[in-house]
Amino acid sequence: MKIRDIGGEFGLIDRIKNKIKLFSKGIVAGIGDDTAVLKYDKNNYLLFTTDMLVENDHFSLKYSNPQQIGMKAIEQNASDIASMGGIPKFALVSLALPNEIDVDFVDKLYSGVNQKSKKYRISIVGGNIMHSKDIVVSVALIGFVEKKYLALRSGAKIGDVIFCSGNFGSSSIGLELLRCNLKGKSIKKHLEPEARLSLARKLVKVGINSMIDISDGVASEVRHICNESNVGAIIYADKIPISKEMINDAKKINKNPLDFALYGGEDFELIFTANKNKIKQLKKFDVKVIGQIVAKKHGIKLIKNNKKENIKSGFDHFKRLRV
Amino acid sequence: MKIRDIGGEFGLIDRIKNKIKLFSKGIVAGIGDDTAVLKYDKNNYLLFTTDMLVENDHFSLKYSNPQQIGMKAIEQNASDIASMGGIPKFALVSLALPNEIDVDFVDKLYSGVNQKSKKYRISIVGGNIMHSKDIVVSVALIGFVEKKYLALRSGAKIGDVIFCSGNFGSSSIGLELLRCNLKGKSIKKHLEPEARLSLARKLVKVGINSMIDISDGVASEVRHICNESNVGAIIYADKIPISKEMINDAKKINKNPLDFALYGGEDFELIFTANKNKIKQLKKFDVKVIGQIVAKKHGIKLIKNNKKENIKSGFDHFKRLRV
Repeated sequence: MKIRDIGGEFGLIDRIKNKIKLFSKGIVAGIGDDTAVLKYDKNNYLLFTTDMLVENDHFSLKYSNPQQIGMKAIEQNASDIASMGGIPKFALVSLALPNEIDVDFVDKLYSGVNQKSKKYRISIVGGNIMHSKDIVVSVALIGFVEKKYLALRSGAKIGDVIFCSGNFGSSSIGLELLRCNLKGKSIKKHLEPEARLSLARKLVKVGINSMIDISDGVASEVRHICNESNVGAIIYADKIPISKEMINDAKKINKNPLDFALYGGEDFELIFTANKNKIKQLKKFDVKVIGQIVAKKHGIKLIKNNKKENIKSGFDHFKRLRV
Repeated sequence: MKIRDIGGEFGLIDRIKNKIKLFSKGIVAGIGDDTAVLKYDKNNYLLFTTDMLVENDHFSLKYSNPQQIGMKAIEQNASDIASMGGIPKFALVSLALPNEIDVDFVDKLYSGVNQKSKKYRISIVGGNIMHSKDIVVSVALIGFVEKKYLALRSGAKIGDVIFCSGNFGSSSIGLELLRCNLKGKSIKKHLEPEARLSLARKLVKVGINSMIDISDGVASEVRHICNESNVGAIIYADKIPISKEMINDAKKINKNPLDFALYGGEDFELIFTANKNKIKQLKKFDVKVIGQIVAKKHGIKLIKNNKKENIKSGFDHFKRLRV
C-alpha cells in the first residue's frame, strides 16, 4: 500500500496522529494545527513549529538562487506562526548539503536566512550542518502568542464569515511560468513569498475565530478549518481574489486562474473566519470576504456561476510534485 | 572554495556564527552547544535542539530497518538534551519520503519513534510529511533543565577531571562490520544507540562543570569542550574505555580500536568535566576518568605509550561519509 492509497500526505498524518501518545498536560494544541501550542506563562502560549525545504521538490536550483532558498525557509515557518496570531522568536536552522557545494552558496543561502530573521527579529540559536545528496533546509521555530490572541484552525463557528488576505494562486502560476521558460510578475511571488505576520497580529487584535495560512491552496486550507472546527463552508468563486498580473500570467500558458487559486500552494496568505459583527473593523485591512461557515452537514461547497459544486482537495506532495 | 577547504562542518558553523544577529535577551546559550538554552521561568531553562537523519549518509536501508531509523531519530535528539543535563518534553517530527514508499515502512518508522518517545515520555506535538528522493527524518525537540543543573560545553575549568560514560567506538566499528558483511556485537550499538539521559541527570545532581555527548568521537568532543571553555586537555589513551566485544569486532577487520574510539562517531555516550573533589561521588556511576583539563597554552594532547601527541579532529561529514 502506497501513501497515495491512504489519501496522501493528510491521510498519513491522520494515521500517525492516531498512534501517538501524549505525556504532558502542557499541550494546548498538538498535531492538526499550523504550530503546536504549549503552555508558557500566565498570559502567553509558546508556539513550536518546523518546516523543511527539499531540493527538487520545494525548490529547484534551476529557478531559485541560494538567497531565495534561505529567505523562503524562514518565511514559510514565520507564516505558520502568523496563522496562530503569534510572534516568532527563536529558530534552529539545519542544512544538509552536497559535498561539492561552494562555500559561497552557503554564504548566500545564509544571507537570505539572516535577511528574513532580521526583518522579523528572529534569533538563530542553533542548528546543524550535514552532508546529503540533495539540499535540505529544515527550520524549527519557537514563537509566542498572548492567550487572548491565539487563533486555531478549530475555532470556526457556524455563521462565521470567511475572509482571506491578499491574492491567491500567484505562487503556483509563477512556478508554471518558470517551467515554461516564460516571464511574468507572478514569478517573484513564487520565489520570494512573504508571510503576513504583521497583518495577522492586527487581525487577532480585532478578534477572529479561526485562522490558517495558505500552504496548499484555498481548497485545502478551508477543508482543514472545517475538519478541525467540525463545520462546513460555502466559498464564492467570484469573490476569490486573483491579481490582474496573475490573470495575465495564466493567459500566457492557457491556464484557468481560479484552479490555481483554489488548488495551487505556497501563497502564504491567510484564511480566517470571524463573527459578522467584525466585518467593518476587519475590512480596514487588506482582506476580503470569500464565503461563510455553515453546518457540517452542508459539506464544503464552491458557488460558481450560481451552481454549487464540491471542492476538491488541495495540493498533495504524494499526488503530484511541486517543482 | 569547498566546505572542506574551510575546515569542514565546524569551519562552516564558525563562519555562520559570525554572521548571525541575535534579537533577544532571552538567550542563555546559542550556536556552539548541544542545544540552545533559553530563559523560561524562575527555576528552569528551556532547551531547544534539532537533528536530522539523511538516508545514505546517517543510515542505509541496507543495514537499518525502519523502526531503527525512527528510534535513532529520537535517541540522537534526546542525547543532546541529556548533554545539557535536561529532560526532553515536546518533539516535532518531519519526514521527507520517496513517492513509492510503502505505508507499512512509515508505520514501522513511526513505531520506532513512538517506542522511544514513550521511554522518555516525549510528546510528539506536530511535524510535517513531504516528498523527497531520499528519506529524511528531522526532529526538533524542546526540553527543560533546572537552572542549577544546566551543563554547558563552556564550563570546564583548569584542573577539572575529564570523565566519560560507557564505552567508545562501538557504533563506528559496528558500521564497519556491516559494510564488510560481518557479524558482531558492535552492530547493535550502531543500529540502536541509546542516549544516556538518566545517567546525565544523576551527574548534574552531583555537580559537574561541563558536558557534551559523543556524536563525532572523543577527539572531536573534547575539542569542543576545550574551545568553548578556553582551556586545553590531556587525554590518557590507555584510560579510554573500549569494550571487549568492540576489540574483538575490530580484530575481525584488522582495525585499531583506539582510532575508532577517538575518531568514530555516534556512541551517544557522555564526556564531562568536574572538580577533583567530586571523583568519589561520580565514580559510583558507570563513568571513568580519561584525562584532565589544563591551561589552553598546553593544547589538546593524547598521552600514548608515555608520549604526547596532538589529537586530530573527529568525524566530519564533509571529509568522509558516514554510510
